[in-house]
Amino acid sequence: MSDDSQTHCCNDADNTNPTGDLNDLTDLRERIAQAVRDVKKTTPLAQSFTNFVTINLVANAQLAAGGTAAMSFLPDDIIDTASISGADYINVGTLLPFYKDALPQIARAFRKSDHKWVLDPVAAGIGKTRTEILRSFRAAPPTIVRGNASEIIALATMWGLISADEASRPAGVESVDEVDAAIEPAKKLAAFLSASTPNNQAAVAVSGKVDLVTDGEHVYRLPGGSPLMEKITGAGCSLGGVTATYLAVAEPLVAALAASLLYNRAAEVAEAKAEGPGSFQVHLLDALWNVTPEQVAGSEILS
Amino acid sequence: MSDDSQTHCCNDADNTNPTGDLNDLTDLRERIAQAVRDVKKTTPLAQSFTNFVTINLVANAQLAAGGTAAMSFLPDDIIDTASISGADYINVGTLLPFYKDALPQIARAFRKSDHKWVLDPVAAGIGKTRTEILRSFRAAPPTIVRGNASEIIALATMWGLISADEASRPAGVESVDEVDAAIEPAKKLAAFLSASTPNNQAAVAVSGKVDLVTDGEHVYRLPGGSPLMEKITGAGCSLGGVTATYLAVAEPLVAALAASLLYNRAAEVAEAKAEGPGSFQVHLLDALWNVTPEQVAGSEILS
Amino acid sequence: MSDDSQTHCCNDADNTNPTGDLNDLTDLRERIAQAVRDVKKTTPLAQSFTNFVTINLVANAQLAAGGTAAMSFLPDDIIDTASISGADYINVGTLLPFYKDALPQIARAFRKSDHKWVLDPVAAGIGKTRTEILRSFRAAPPTIVRGNASEIIALATMWGLISADEASRPAGVESVDEVDAAIEPAKKLAAFLSASTPNNQAAVAVSGKVDLVTDGEHVYRLPGGSPLMEKITGAGCSLGGVTATYLAVAEPLVAALAASLLYNRAAEVAEAKAEGPGSFQVHLLDALWNVTPEQVAGSEILS
Repeated sequence: MSDDSQTHCCNDADNTNPTGDLNDLTDLRERIAQAVRDVKKTTPLAQSFTNFVTINLVANAQLAAGGTAAMSFLPDDIIDTASISGADYINVGTLLPFYKDALPQIARAFRKSDHKWVLDPVAAGIGKTRTEILRSFRAAPPTIVRGNASEIIALATMWGLISADEASRPAGVESVDEVDAAIEPAKKLAAFLSASTPNNQAAVAVSGKVDLVTDGEHVYRLPGGSPLMEKITGAGCSLGGVTATYLAVAEPLVAALAASLLYNRAAEVAEAKAEGPGSFQVHLLDALWNVTPEQVAGSEILS
Repeated sequence: MSDDSQTHCCNDADNTNPTGDLNDLTDLRERIAQAVRDVKKTTPLAQSFTNFVTINLVANAQLAAGGTAAMSFLPDDIIDTASISGADYINVGTLLPFYKDALPQIARAFRKSDHKWVLDPVAAGIGKTRTEILRSFRAAPPTIVRGNASEIIALATMWGLISADEASRPAGVESVDEVDAAIEPAKKLAAFLSASTPNNQAAVAVSGKVDLVTDGEHVYRLPGGSPLMEKITGAGCSLGGVTATYLAVAEPLVAALAASLLYNRAAEVAEAKAEGPGSFQVHLLDALWNVTPEQVAGSEILS
Repeated sequence: MSDDSQTHCCNDADNTNPTGDLNDLTDLRERIAQAVRDVKKTTPLAQSFTNFVTINLVANAQLAAGGTAAMSFLPDDIIDTASISGADYINVGTLLPFYKDALPQIARAFRKSDHKWVLDPVAAGIGKTRTEILRSFRAAPPTIVRGNASEIIALATMWGLISADEASRPAGVESVDEVDAAIEPAKKLAAFLSASTPNNQAAVAVSGKVDLVTDGEHVYRLPGGSPLMEKITGAGCSLGGVTATYLAVAEPLVAALAASLLYNRAAEVAEAKAEGPGSFQVHLLDALWNVTPEQVAGSEILS
């Protein structure tokens, strides 16, 4: 889609994004299955700079999906490790004072080396330091953004991709699904990210009752999952980490879809076995390990 | 009770604290049940500034009890979020250098806006930095303090509420239950906190074999729980976090009682199912989710 | 063994290290069983300065093994607590800026008071800050080093105990077990550590498919464990923490052997019950609690 408000934005008529018809969805499913298989086979490293609340679950989820995890905070650590990491994950929860300089520095280093990364704009809009950090990423943007509807809207607003008017409107109306309110902001954000990458490939994933994934052009809706996901901390963060794991082996749209679909299927398996949020988390990690590439790729995808 | 040693301290003859007779205990039980119900119904946000060891369990316990969690460390984050948070939780384990300035600043902001918060004085008495931070809270005190006996005694001593002589005495005698040694310090601490709040309501909870909760006047003893609570890390911290969750919807005494009672009941359920500390923690989170308001409020309360 | 390259290194002909024959192995097994029993009986405190990813598992594993845990980062906290801690554990994952000064300061304080500690040189060789910190420990070395083969080789190289040539050689050949490549570096490292302690006792543990423990003279191989250990984060870190727990009650060689053997037996129990990495971790903590001193000490030990 065209994004008139952004000079950085463009469409690549030659890109290979699926167009949403039956054949493309078949092709997309094959690429999703391949990504899930490739992670299990090659155990790719995805490095994380993430919050202290859910850092353990992020690492365990990446391992359960078949990848390898490394967590770091110092720019010298991160930049050293990025050279052997297929993709990185940055989550801006639980900020410490030095992040204000460290995170922009890391994002610039990633951009300089065209290193792929996933941004989780946790709590976007809250706190002066977080806002400064998130604003700085506009000049060195990620390959994928994953968040809930309000975070995606806040980030798109912060980067001037939608007007404050557009941003505030959804809050004023009762939308059937809050994720709906983020469709346009998510598409504009994905188009902006896409225009910022060398090969014009990027994606935005919005987590909600029905997840939404877009490459800026097409929008995919992924139903399913479990309401217990909101009753454990880190469902979203660890999905972000696993998205980076898939990004290490696949193009952004495929990575975002594969990770969200794996999570929905695993959550359903876990819910069926759980007696509460404690056992749900245990079964979720087991299911991330046990759900097959075919189950992930065979999921319902509404396009 | 009167607290002659403290000029800040007073009794409010008009306060609505229960007097401990049968009718009041009935009323108290109703208010406890209501608090447990209100949390499940309104999913209140309680924000935490807590240690890195158990931060995940604190959040998961708050979610399992029915609340919502947000964890932050930067003053701008905390103060922004406090405006939408029903109560806050501060735990002084695993200090970092910048906490020395950040924590007093946060406490002052809470005081300025009469924001309710729970203090967990982990390891009170150990380390120069922790002592400085805990001392500073005397001028901007919390609504509830929750700790073990030695932490409550150390804090009351640090704030000059009991003499060093009174503080050291318990260590010299073999008390039947170490929590007994903290009764007077806990009452004096609660009276001091109460006198520092606009509506003269505060509480202190002492965790031990038999938990003790006081509003400065009445003392309630809560038997039960499980010895396995000491074999997982964060039983106390997460109880502190859940206390803040209840404080978001209830007065301090009711919040402290509800949280401690919920924990004792959940621990008993979990112990019966556990095969060791690993499964105990899983079952504990499930039980925090499954224990009913009636089970919490129907608990044995010795007053 | 003699270590010609190091002036700090020496052999103590009078030391009580086992010589590897049948009688000594019998004696060693008795000392291992005693260490496991002593921890369960005396619940010794081992303090940790460890990474944020696995800090919760480290504490829970120490508790499950029967010990007590305390986690700190500020030098004043650590040094205060070390006076009541039987041994400390330092893990250099997830560095923050202030660690560069704090960690060398802590190591110097430990050396000054002959305080026993275990070093986990996580990611040795990655990042300028980590390298500076690890280099600084040469002048104030730990009692035990526990790591994987590449970390042990990197540390031994960094401290000049092996030549860069020796260090790079293993990477060039396909060793049957990567732990084999670390035998000489581990022995030289243990001999160096041993020469740095007042009573000439130290150990190095190399985790891998078959674990390896050495006091610088003898090498013990510990088969068993589970491949699922690599599918959860913190198996190695928590083994390091439990090694410190045993070090609080036993000599270094016995502590390193007891911890590694306990982990292998517990991992086997957990694997038999697990349905994936989520339940594996739960069962692992239960098994650390349930495996008996006799089971640990009766393990296969190849010397």
